[in-house]
Amino acid sequence: MINFEYYAPTKIFFGKDTQKDVGKIIKNYGYKKILLHFGGGSVKKSGLYDQVVESLKNSNIDFVELGGVEANPKVSLVRIGAELCKKENIELVLAVGGGSVIDSAKVIASSAVTTIDPWEFSSKMETPKKALPVGTILTLSASGSEMSSSAVLTNEDGLLKRGYNSEFNRPLFSILNPELTYTVNQFQTGCGIVDIMMHTLERYFTITKKVDLTDHIAEGLLISVINAGEVAIKNPEDYEARATLMWAGSLSHNDLTGVGGDVFMACHQIEHELSGIYDFVAHGAGLSIIFPAWAKFVYKYNVEKFCQYAVRVWNIEMNFENPQETALKGIIATENYFKSLNMPVRLSELNISDEKFEEMAIKCTFWGERVLPDYIPLDKKEIIEILELCK
Amino acid sequence: MINFEYYAPTKIFFGKDTQKDVGKIIKNYGYKKILLHFGGGSVKKSGLYDQVVESLKNSNIDFVELGGVEANPKVSLVRIGAELCKKENIELVLAVGGGSVIDSAKVIASSAVTTIDPWEFSSKMETPKKALPVGTILTLSASGSEMSSSAVLTNEDGLLKRGYNSEFNRPLFSILNPELTYTVNQFQTGCGIVDIMMHTLERYFTITKKVDLTDHIAEGLLISVINAGEVAIKNPEDYEARATLMWAGSLSHNDLTGVGGDVFMACHQIEHELSGIYDFVAHGAGLSIIFPAWAKFVYKYNVEKFCQYAVRVWNIEMNFENPQETALKGIIATENYFKSLNMPVRLSELNISDEKFEEMAIKCTFWGERVLPDYIPLDKKEIIEILELCK
Repeated sequence: MINFEYYAPTKIFFGKDTQKDVGKIIKNYGYKKILLHFGGGSVKKSGLYDQVVESLKNSNIDFVELGGVEANPKVSLVRIGAELCKKENIELVLAVGGGSVIDSAKVIASSAVTTIDPWEFSSKMETPKKALPVGTILTLSASGSEMSSSAVLTNEDGLLKRGYNSEFNRPLFSILNPELTYTVNQFQTGCGIVDIMMHTLERYFTITKKVDLTDHIAEGLLISVINAGEVAIKNPEDYEARATLMWAGSLSHNDLTGVGGDVFMACHQIEHELSGIYDFVAHGAGLSIIFPAWAKFVYKYNVEKFCQYAVRVWNIEMNFENPQETALKGIIATENYFKSLNMPVRLSELNISDEKFEEMAIKCTFWGERVLPDYIPLDKKEIIEILELCK
Repeated sequence: MINFEYYAPTKIFFGKDTQKDVGKIIKNYGYKKILLHFGGGSVKKSGLYDQVVESLKNSNIDFVELGGVEANPKVSLVRIGAELCKKENIELVLAVGGGSVIDSAKVIASSAVTTIDPWEFSSKMETPKKALPVGTILTLSASGSEMSSSAVLTNEDGLLKRGYNSEFNRPLFSILNPELTYTVNQFQTGCGIVDIMMHTLERYFTITKKVDLTDHIAEGLLISVINAGEVAIKNPEDYEARATLMWAGSLSHNDLTGVGGDVFMACHQIEHELSGIYDFVAHGAGLSIIFPAWAKFVYKYNVEKFCQYAVRVWNIEMNFENPQETALKGIIATENYFKSLNMPVRLSELNISDEKFEEMAIKCTFWGERVLPDYIPLDKKEIIEILELCK
């Protein structure tokens, strides 16, 4: 176990009808004027927008609106949001939506109190020194952004997708009502399940030895998500399954499932290049393709951890004479599970050829400026090999 | 799963040598004058006191000292501490020690900003509205007070031990260096292991159905603690084992292992009466006696949960024809584990007879004013029956 800091200060309001308290919650914090930030029309169609507005009005919270956040949120909208906050003296940014809306809100909150351009944060050229507080009402169990320190934006110039971590990215509060995810369709539900699992898996597959407690917590979370995922795909209105996914999504990315170990997030790094170039690739779908390929490429450099994963998470019997077989069975079980969620596990399913593998690999190494740390270092050559396994 | 709020804002600095940063940490928060609160001579003997003082001086943090906290911390010292804080314009209370010191610091912090007597908080007659921030340097893995919202005090008049929960009890930061627990003797280590397990077990045995994710996290934590406990008892200087116990202690009482379920904490309530009357009974030793008795008394009212516990935590084979047998085996496995830590599992081992069972039961029902909620309600009669099983 290595030294670590753990800081997950976001206050969670979890359960049925909690979104109706948003006005009261903001009032209790003493804020009076907020930016109401959301995506497309779905929050209006579902009636959530009306509920939020009613709750805000009942508590005399003044608000300015900014909708229009797209999947893979764009820096251009963040610039507009930051200016709006300055002009309107906004005190808190309330994100109503999924990870894209929350990430957009986070960077708006950091940019609203400075003259630094938001992309400077995303590209890690600058570090936020302060930020407006962010509150969230979550409508999609996936990104974990509602408790995490990370935010990812896309820059339309250059098709770059970049993320940064900052304590200022931790939301002040997050309202989590699993019922708000009933209307999430099967594909998006599947993407969310993969994303949640991946936030834990990328921490779980650390090179650090002896992270027994964190491992056990991660394994327990994965088993719960696997079980709940099966149910939620079949019955989108199963409260308990949706609740498990929602809470697991928050815990999976608040560092709990990774503390004490070195974290790489290699699959996420590679996926960012994939969905950065192919905007139609949902993050979860990209990850469900990349993880099995990544695992098949690296498992032989840490067979024991992949065996532990296979045995404890997938209940695969340990083959003591041939541990590699056990390790591989765990990877195949994961791939099969992703398939059972109707998620793609090969690029060909998305009609993506190998023509941009080199471009993705180059971008992922920041044009030769970094090698991804992993069980073996992942340079351009290795990233291309992993992408080849995605074909 | 029931609706819940989750709020664990304490910033954790975990690992080797972290105590040496305490001055810098406090300075970063902007505080300049603190109360340095500790127990007996052990922090001076171990050299920790000197390290803390050096770190504070290096960062120009002014401090006033108040030592002398005893096990089962007394309200009389808290009164002195609160007056001292007022007189000296203290900005933060730094607790260096175990749960007793931290609990004492918490109530001092709440009492220092009001004229309300500390016992009014402990006896739940008054609720804190504000408090000084509390920081901790933990020297004993047990109470979880370093991340929890609870504080327990003893009132020497009447031998009452009472606790209360408040968000103001959550420490601002906690410094957790497992090496500081190397010198904790075998008995206190055993007490700590029991206490950590009990904070999770009392949440785990909820009447609420379908808390699958929380259950899995709780089970993973218990397995890790059971394994690490065995190691730490044999080799007190095993860093990984001490680290697992320390982090598990914090997570066990910060609500993570209980969210989504109704929590009773019946064993804790009964134990408070035991160590309230018999001051020599360490909290963990009291719990290692009461839990097996409580479990044997209530398990037949929730056989399935006790089976799940036996199978998942203790790896006991499920007897599908006779689930009660499986359930009981899990309880016996726990009792045997406590014994293996050299913890008492019967009151007779502590030379405590049944003469005060009635008094304890009456106090535990607040002189007839409450019945403990549980799988069946625990009134005076049932509490005495549980105590009879402790003989």
